[in-house]
Amino acid sequence: MPHIQLEKHLPGVTGLLEFRKDTGDLLRELTQVLLKGPSTLTEGERELIATIVSHRNECTYCKTSHTAVANEYLGNSTTSELVKEDIETAPVSEKMKALLQIAAKVQVSGKNVDERSVQRAKNAGATDLEIHDTVMIAALFSFYNRYVDGLSTIAPTDPIYYTDMAKRLAEHGYHRPSKGYDPNKLHQ
Amino acid sequence: MPHIQLEKHLPGVTGLLEFRKDTGDLLRELTQVLLKGPSTLTEGERELIATIVSHRNECTYCKTSHTAVANEYLGNSTTSELVKEDIETAPVSEKMKALLQIAAKVQVSGKNVDERSVQRAKNAGATDLEIHDTVMIAALFSFYNRYVDGLSTIAPTDPIYYTDMAKRLAEHGYHRPSKGYDPNKLHQ
Repeated sequence: MPHIQLEKHLPGVTGLLEFRKDTGDLLRELTQVLLKGPSTLTEGERELIATIVSHRNECTYCKTSHTAVANEYLGNSTTSELVKEDIETAPVSEKMKALLQIAAKVQVSGKNVDERSVQRAKNAGATDLEIHDTVMIAALFSFYNRYVDGLSTIAPTDPIYYTDMAKRLAEHGYHRPSKGYDPNKLHQ
Repeated sequence: MPHIQLEKHLPGVTGLLEFRKDTGDLLRELTQVLLKGPSTLTEGERELIATIVSHRNECTYCKTSHTAVANEYLGNSTTSELVKEDIETAPVSEKMKALLQIAAKVQVSGKNVDERSVQRAKNAGATDLEIHDTVMIAALFSFYNRYVDGLSTIAPTDPIYYTDMAKRLAEHGYHRPSKGYDPNKLHQ
């Protein structure tokens, strides 16, 4: 049960974004810009970064959600599983391996990101902006995982919830849902 | 040395906020709303929450900055030091002790926030919104600490930097500095 009173039909972060709309709207926009805005990293690659951090923080709602979104973009469900098992043997580019390793270090502490890890990414062709965005996405999900679990929000057990949400996010993004997608409307 | 090329005269988070202005402006606004917007928690209390998390993450730039901002609001430099030493014996209210303990749990993992810690805060008069904001501020600084240290930004060693910044933040807030406060202007 959540630690604070949230709308029952809004699980995970969705209830928190509605609980305080001013911070919620800014968070939605930040996530939209960082995960779906113009970038030389694909949306699937960025969702894998969100996934590895949420997985290692064992945030059920976040890891299940972003695994589903990554799968939606990548067109398969094996890549995300293999990344979660072992970054080094997963079917992603050398650049993505280096960036995912940086993200995994950020999950523990920013101080763990050493020169060697960054040099590996640069040697594999990563730009400063890609390294910046990787650290920022990993840090942002260190935020989200704590926000979602720190208030003890509910994670639905039905896999359909996550695959439906992934389709909606891939199509409409992280903005506040428009009229047709207002989650409150589902219950009216 | 930072892992990516940042403007040399902008230490800590300030160089990152300029490196990517679109995400930087959204972060500034989120921080402004959460730490300086209308709230039943004082600005000093909210800065103590930012301070305890940054202190425990050993983020030199963040902990020195937010200690200075807390001191500026509280009008003394002992409260923040005593909070960092031991929350339970620090000269803050029972409600603030309970909220700071929640923040300290969030710093480690959102999952560590148990029903008992939340009940203690509620018994001491904390509202759902105050508990929400405490978790969110603690999670936000779990983000900032990783963002600042994950890119190996520079922390100035001169204490004047932090006390000057604290005065400016207390007066002008976290918004992008207006013309008179453009940090680049300091070097022109």
